[in-house]
Amino acid sequence: MSHVLVGGGLVVALSGGVGGAKLALGLSRVLPAEELLVVANTGDDFEHLGLTICPDIDTLSYVLAGLDNPATGWGRRDETWSFMETIATLGGADWFRLGDRDLALHVERTRRLGAGQSLSQITADICHRLGIGPRVLPMSDDRVRTRVRGEGGWIDFQDYFVRQQCRPAVHELAFTGAADARPQPDVMAALASGNVRAVVICPSNPFISIEPILAVPGLRAAIEGCGAPVVAVSPIVDGRAVKGPTAKMMQELGLPVSSAAVAKRYGGLLDGYVVDAADSESIGAELLIAPTLMTTLEDRETLARAVLGFADRLG
Amino acid sequence: MSHVLVGGGLVVALSGGVGGAKLALGLSRVLPAEELLVVANTGDDFEHLGLTICPDIDTLSYVLAGLDNPATGWGRRDETWSFMETIATLGGADWFRLGDRDLALHVERTRRLGAGQSLSQITADICHRLGIGPRVLPMSDDRVRTRVRGEGGWIDFQDYFVRQQCRPAVHELAFTGAADARPQPDVMAALASGNVRAVVICPSNPFISIEPILAVPGLRAAIEGCGAPVVAVSPIVDGRAVKGPTAKMMQELGLPVSSAAVAKRYGGLLDGYVVDAADSESIGAELLIAPTLMTTLEDRETLARAVLGFADRLG
Repeated sequence: MSHVLVGGGLVVALSGGVGGAKLALGLSRVLPAEELLVVANTGDDFEHLGLTICPDIDTLSYVLAGLDNPATGWGRRDETWSFMETIATLGGADWFRLGDRDLALHVERTRRLGAGQSLSQITADICHRLGIGPRVLPMSDDRVRTRVRGEGGWIDFQDYFVRQQCRPAVHELAFTGAADARPQPDVMAALASGNVRAVVICPSNPFISIEPILAVPGLRAAIEGCGAPVVAVSPIVDGRAVKGPTAKMMQELGLPVSSAAVAKRYGGLLDGYVVDAADSESIGAELLIAPTLMTTLEDRETLARAVLGFADRLG
Repeated sequence: MSHVLVGGGLVVALSGGVGGAKLALGLSRVLPAEELLVVANTGDDFEHLGLTICPDIDTLSYVLAGLDNPATGWGRRDETWSFMETIATLGGADWFRLGDRDLALHVERTRRLGAGQSLSQITADICHRLGIGPRVLPMSDDRVRTRVRGEGGWIDFQDYFVRQQCRPAVHELAFTGAADARPQPDVMAALASGNVRAVVICPSNPFISIEPILAVPGLRAAIEGCGAPVVAVSPIVDGRAVKGPTAKMMQELGLPVSSAAVAKRYGGLLDGYVVDAADSESIGAELLIAPTLMTTLEDRETLARAVLGFADRLG
């Protein structure tokens, strides 16, 4: 680990799951722990088998703790599957794959939520126990649930995403509960501190990872008003999504599959935008052309440094 | 399997965990499935990690399905422990050992209870899925919880039994909720059918396995009025409990550690009592002397046949 960047101040990163977690890991390796706060999307959280499951918080936690499974992109490494094998024989739902180790996190979180702890408290404690330095906080402690309108009507996000493997064409998205959700107070305090160096929008799916965060009342305004440059990294490389249904969703929503179209979704929020050389297009923000495909750990660190250096020049 | 006993009619067995399940297995192997109904104690059920755990139902289910772990006497064979290893690292409680496969049952049951299904429905369905022929039913669908008064005051049963490994001296027991619990309706209907061949009280701990069943209002009277002989098998062999805290508890409660003392607890309920040769004492019921220590599968079947033959002679 090398802290090549000086200047201090807090970097606030908005992240979904796999793609966002890659850059969050890069940021965590080039910044002192106390200078990074990762705000996780909770729109894809859901209740399953009586458990509250937070896929993006979990992916971030496992990636930042070095416990992630590089083969799948979700869940834990060195996992076993006895629970899943057995629940199928009992008539329980087995379409959402829960490993035995992963399950411990969901059971313990659900127990603590039932005991009245907030998702923020639980996440902070579990991250601490997993040895994660930077803060990871949910966008809100209130329940926000992404829903998707396909041909057959509205369905829950994980039904679309996992059970139906993103097969339905998406016509519309909704973030149920978002209008009444309170933004996570420590996130708001950090944004209001006057000590923010940059807000980084990670290369996550804009529709299902970043927009639920921005839909929490007050959060977008707090980002705009924090006095620091807002820099997004495009999730599109060479006209394709690196992972997941981003490109498919853009087509279904009638958008061109391009980095520029993603930037346009964020509207006036962006001061800077980081795109791959293959995707260089004029948008309404400063552009940094950098390799955004993160394959190796070094890629993650290099992009994190590039993003921070770019933000510092804009700031 | 050999059905040496004819005559038909329903055998209703009252059972706790390990010891009772041994005889229940024997009965299941010498009776047609439709002629056996096992009534399980739920006094040692408890809520743990947000899950509802029913140790006696589970032991009975695993034993009758041939899935039990003969090395431990509880839980499942071919078990893995990834969940338990992980929950400890997350600060969760790890004093009650839950294997990954075992956990699937608790998660699925808790989910179904939350969805409004009764414990009876859930137990019947899970037993069906595990390929168990005889009916296994809880004594009640209402919550009854055994509590134990030791030197330090009242504690929950599993705290005493597992967490403190039966170390506290027991001065008193209570079955919280029993007074308001409704007996399981199918059990009551069976007892009122006029078609009961025998009621068998399995060699379980009288204080914590059988008395909670008898404490459910109406159940004891229904047994007494069912018109069939009531036969108990002593859990004491040669002045010692085969397993668990029965003998220790009897001493602490000021009772002699003897088969006769157990029979006395059941009062006028018994028509017949099955004891080992080493424990032959006069009690207020007909006595059958038989080998009650069940080590092999053949022992279980042999004792089951002896108990049924004895009951038939009394009937």
